[in-house]
Amino acid sequence: MNNTGKFRRYWGVATFLAATAVAVPALAAEGGLGDTVIQLAYSLDTFYFLMSGALVMWMAAGFAMLEAGLVRGKNTVEILTKNVALYAIACIMYMLFGYNIMYGDGVSSLIPGFSLFLGADHEVDAVLKSGGETYYSSMADFFFQVVFVATAMSIVSGAVAERMKLWAFLAFAVVMTGFIYPVQGFWKWGGGFLDGLGFLDFAGSGVVHLCGASAALAGVILLGARKGKYVNGRVKAIPGANLPLATLGTFILWLGWFGFNGGSELRISNIEEANAVAKIFVNTNTAAAGGLVTALLLSRAWFGKADLTMALNGALAGLVAITAEPLTPGPLAATLIGAVGGLIVVASIITIDKAKVDDPVGAISVHGVCGIWGLLAVVFTNPEASLVAQLTGIAVIFAWVFLTSFAVWFVIKAVAGIRVSEEEEMEGVDVAECGLAAYPEFTKD
Amino acid sequence: MNNTGKFRRYWGVATFLAATAVAVPALAAEGGLGDTVIQLAYSLDTFYFLMSGALVMWMAAGFAMLEAGLVRGKNTVEILTKNVALYAIACIMYMLFGYNIMYGDGVSSLIPGFSLFLGADHEVDAVLKSGGETYYSSMADFFFQVVFVATAMSIVSGAVAERMKLWAFLAFAVVMTGFIYPVQGFWKWGGGFLDGLGFLDFAGSGVVHLCGASAALAGVILLGARKGKYVNGRVKAIPGANLPLATLGTFILWLGWFGFNGGSELRISNIEEANAVAKIFVNTNTAAAGGLVTALLLSRAWFGKADLTMALNGALAGLVAITAEPLTPGPLAATLIGAVGGLIVVASIITIDKAKVDDPVGAISVHGVCGIWGLLAVVFTNPEASLVAQLTGIAVIFAWVFLTSFAVWFVIKAVAGIRVSEEEEMEGVDVAECGLAAYPEFTKD
Amino acid sequence: MNNTGKFRRYWGVATFLAATAVAVPALAAEGGLGDTVIQLAYSLDTFYFLMSGALVMWMAAGFAMLEAGLVRGKNTVEILTKNVALYAIACIMYMLFGYNIMYGDGVSSLIPGFSLFLGADHEVDAVLKSGGETYYSSMADFFFQVVFVATAMSIVSGAVAERMKLWAFLAFAVVMTGFIYPVQGFWKWGGGFLDGLGFLDFAGSGVVHLCGASAALAGVILLGARKGKYVNGRVKAIPGANLPLATLGTFILWLGWFGFNGGSELRISNIEEANAVAKIFVNTNTAAAGGLVTALLLSRAWFGKADLTMALNGALAGLVAITAEPLTPGPLAATLIGAVGGLIVVASIITIDKAKVDDPVGAISVHGVCGIWGLLAVVFTNPEASLVAQLTGIAVIFAWVFLTSFAVWFVIKAVAGIRVSEEEEMEGVDVAECGLAAYPEFTKD
Repeated sequence: MNNTGKFRRYWGVATFLAATAVAVPALAAEGGLGDTVIQLAYSLDTFYFLMSGALVMWMAAGFAMLEAGLVRGKNTVEILTKNVALYAIACIMYMLFGYNIMYGDGVSSLIPGFSLFLGADHEVDAVLKSGGETYYSSMADFFFQVVFVATAMSIVSGAVAERMKLWAFLAFAVVMTGFIYPVQGFWKWGGGFLDGLGFLDFAGSGVVHLCGASAALAGVILLGARKGKYVNGRVKAIPGANLPLATLGTFILWLGWFGFNGGSELRISNIEEANAVAKIFVNTNTAAAGGLVTALLLSRAWFGKADLTMALNGALAGLVAITAEPLTPGPLAATLIGAVGGLIVVASIITIDKAKVDDPVGAISVHGVCGIWGLLAVVFTNPEASLVAQLTGIAVIFAWVFLTSFAVWFVIKAVAGIRVSEEEEMEGVDVAECGLAAYPEFTKD
Repeated sequence: MNNTGKFRRYWGVATFLAATAVAVPALAAEGGLGDTVIQLAYSLDTFYFLMSGALVMWMAAGFAMLEAGLVRGKNTVEILTKNVALYAIACIMYMLFGYNIMYGDGVSSLIPGFSLFLGADHEVDAVLKSGGETYYSSMADFFFQVVFVATAMSIVSGAVAERMKLWAFLAFAVVMTGFIYPVQGFWKWGGGFLDGLGFLDFAGSGVVHLCGASAALAGVILLGARKGKYVNGRVKAIPGANLPLATLGTFILWLGWFGFNGGSELRISNIEEANAVAKIFVNTNTAAAGGLVTALLLSRAWFGKADLTMALNGALAGLVAITAEPLTPGPLAATLIGAVGGLIVVASIITIDKAKVDDPVGAISVHGVCGIWGLLAVVFTNPEASLVAQLTGIAVIFAWVFLTSFAVWFVIKAVAGIRVSEEEEMEGVDVAECGLAAYPEFTKD
Repeated sequence: MNNTGKFRRYWGVATFLAATAVAVPALAAEGGLGDTVIQLAYSLDTFYFLMSGALVMWMAAGFAMLEAGLVRGKNTVEILTKNVALYAIACIMYMLFGYNIMYGDGVSSLIPGFSLFLGADHEVDAVLKSGGETYYSSMADFFFQVVFVATAMSIVSGAVAERMKLWAFLAFAVVMTGFIYPVQGFWKWGGGFLDGLGFLDFAGSGVVHLCGASAALAGVILLGARKGKYVNGRVKAIPGANLPLATLGTFILWLGWFGFNGGSELRISNIEEANAVAKIFVNTNTAAAGGLVTALLLSRAWFGKADLTMALNGALAGLVAITAEPLTPGPLAATLIGAVGGLIVVASIITIDKAKVDDPVGAISVHGVCGIWGLLAVVFTNPEASLVAQLTGIAVIFAWVFLTSFAVWFVIKAVAGIRVSEEEEMEGVDVAECGLAAYPEFTKD
């Protein structure tokens, strides 16, 4: 595990290193009681990390419900199967390969290393000797990181819904979570060259959300639009089957995001850090609120109706936007960053739809376009950010993920196909792929 | 932020001030290590506060699911839209205005002040100098408070479901969360005159639940009953479309309530406080259990059937009832307080229904009538409570919220109307207001 | 409360007692500050316990959603009612009787005692005097334990779904949660004879899951299969009405299991314990992932389709399997233990189905068969485990719970009947028992 990289991730919070530096000698001088206090701080930080990770894990349920609510009844079982299976695959692949690539000892700041994760946790003596500088369990770190890769992969499943073959998707998930995601993760959070360039991405507007959206875009382009989406040059809306489910999914994601952003502070055990985590909670919440309100107002203005799905996407847009920097803005600025995200997402969904890129749940707009907005917005509130570094980071992440994903999807397509047959698509992928109906008593067919 | 008010909120837990007083000199004498311990306690209390707030935020999802499950399919998107939008509005309005009104420097104990919330968090030095008396992040405090106002507003949406205009409701939400709620909140938790009178309301049976129900009652009276509810003098039951959703909502609320009541202890970082929080968890849980059982039994006795919706409302009734004082009762007393709440709520729902006050989800009974019961029940277990003070608090909260709400609803009605047209109501408000169907493939129309 | 028993439960973590032993004198020597640190550790452990308990409570919602999704629409309200009511009954009965039986002063290691739970929490002075050996609130302990008994009871409701009388089920719940479960709980976790024999069951593959499944099996045998399940010797699949709900339930259970297993470490406030809890989180998560993947692959191989319900049961099988020992395996071993569980559960569901034991949700396979697998698997990773002790524990728990449950079901059957009439079953138990339809607008009748 490359601690340098993770410390760098928090370059902005200079006070935290300083605080540690002050505390250490005092504790060391105290002997036994000082050691007990170090142990207690380690426990609190570990617990905070585990609870944050549990909240992020919960986001997997959020994506599953959101996507299941936004597709048609006949394609619901398959999207559920994809969501539960991708989470499981992400956990296993990241344990076997991904975590080491991302946080191992890189060969260089560009090329990651490949040692397998099977390390033991920190020894008590080593932690005490560090004076508390080693401040949480490495297993807790793994747990927190593993649920992030699942989030990135969940973004993909929504965009390719209703026509992609289940096993093609799962094959892609293996490569994405074991290799594509971790490599760009290493470049930023593992201490690689993007980190060296000063690219700032606090909790993953780029590393997680733009990453997921870039992979999704590659898949959607190779896959093509759903039958019936574009008829005689006109865009047809295909309504989701279960909007309460989509709303529940959004609420779950909103809740889980407190762990996503709040946990990314990595430490809570002193006053500065506790204040930082609290501010991140407030900013995360208010950015979502801002995005929801503007998306609702804009959809009302444009369509004449209060479009619930736009409001939900607005909240998610606000969350994605604030993720790149939830600490430096004040709550008012955070609300504005989210609010702009809410406007962008509505415009983006309509634009992408018109461009005949068929993304049933709006994932590319929410996670990709608003991820980029969030990364750029860092410049407004964090004086250490530079526009050049942010643009570089965006370009590198997009290029890497899009190109490798395109190649992988392409190979899968050539070997086994990625799209179900036209008959299967008409009938619904649930019967074809899973042999089950999601709502056998409710839907007509 | 008026700390006096918040300390007063816990007048009952006298030990907590005493414990602090003892700890401070000892810590100060220890120098560096003592400071580290103060920091650690501050971090633990902040984290506990943030997790509690996240659980209360989750209650917003609970209300959304509960209400969406109890209305008809044709009115489901609108109730979902109301619930997500009110949460966002509450967060923004309370940040801009409400928090300052409620916890700012009041002009007097009756008239709140109006300074805007944009304060920084506690300085490290100031916390250390306080010897740990300043014991959690003020941002965490804001986060915990802001989710409470959303709860109060969520109560309203259920009662006015299926016939109120979306934008009229949202306009009301702006005033309610930015002004009406915070003023009465100031009177109790901000250190205002209700607090001075000795009115006890630990976590908000009055300040949150009765408040929400009073605003709902005003709206329902001005709005009138749903078409088809009262036909030829007979009360017709209008069944909810999705009872699993309503059950899920109740479970979410039950879970969130551990944060609602447990977090209202405000501190967990010493033995007395930790014991208190644990007792509150147990009492909150068992009161809900008691309410569920009695409501189920009473509905079985009265209707001959085990009415699930009554059982769910019974659990919520128990939760509301214990909220005024979840600390002083023993678990057995807490069960009884909840059990009485379960009986009251069944009787109240039937009575209110017969009185032609059309409350589709029973919110006025659950949060208003059982809120009053909870406030009165404080007298049985907390020796510091007085019946006069409790009755005064009930009367003041009800009068303030009902009258101001009535005025606001009245103005909105006069200016823009609060009720959808008869055609829109027949067709369902979803199509009229949101242009979407919640279950386009399931429902007949 | 028998602390001996609970310490024994963690015999494996010998370091924890050692760590405490070291810390105590140091703290005592420090006077005031040392006491403050003890208080802080007590608070952290209590908070960790309460959050774990809240997660386990949330599992009640998971079972309710899982079961509601897997039954037919006409039997959904009743299964929801059973689930909310059994949770409430479990909380009350365990408070009144069960907790004392399980953790009271047993008459012998075979015969539990019966003192009523109404004890106060730990005194501050007593905790300080113990030097931190008493390390969390006893109310928090009760809260954590009470949600476990609800889990055991939730297992039963799924297996007897769609044909059992509501009130017969609730009567059984009273006996199960107040007596049957606590007695075998005492034998292991209360320090009874199973614990003395060296039977290892960290978080309850046996005490909770096998226990629930054994009670379910007794009920299913006495109850008989659903009408239409076995026609002319052929097994007919009866599809569940709402698979998104079942998926949501599984995600809820997965999340809640972090509290179930993670909280069973009982302590987090030093480095060893924090590392242990983190490892348990990782192992719990990866075992579920392993079970999901193998169940999905096996169902694909056997049925030609990716069966979502099998995948969900595979995840649950992995979770149940790792529950007996989530601490000693490495993450890879944990994945394998879960993966074997996923294979077993698919085979078991098919076998049990063919044996005409009609278990609509597969509860007996998931919790019983995989619970046994988990208990046996302890031998592979924990050197302190013995196959004989594990087999003894399995036999004792199964025999006790199956026989007593059979007797209780038998008496209820004789006195009041346990099965609804054939007409009621055809019509659906919802109308007959609860007078409500779960989805009045969606289902045909």
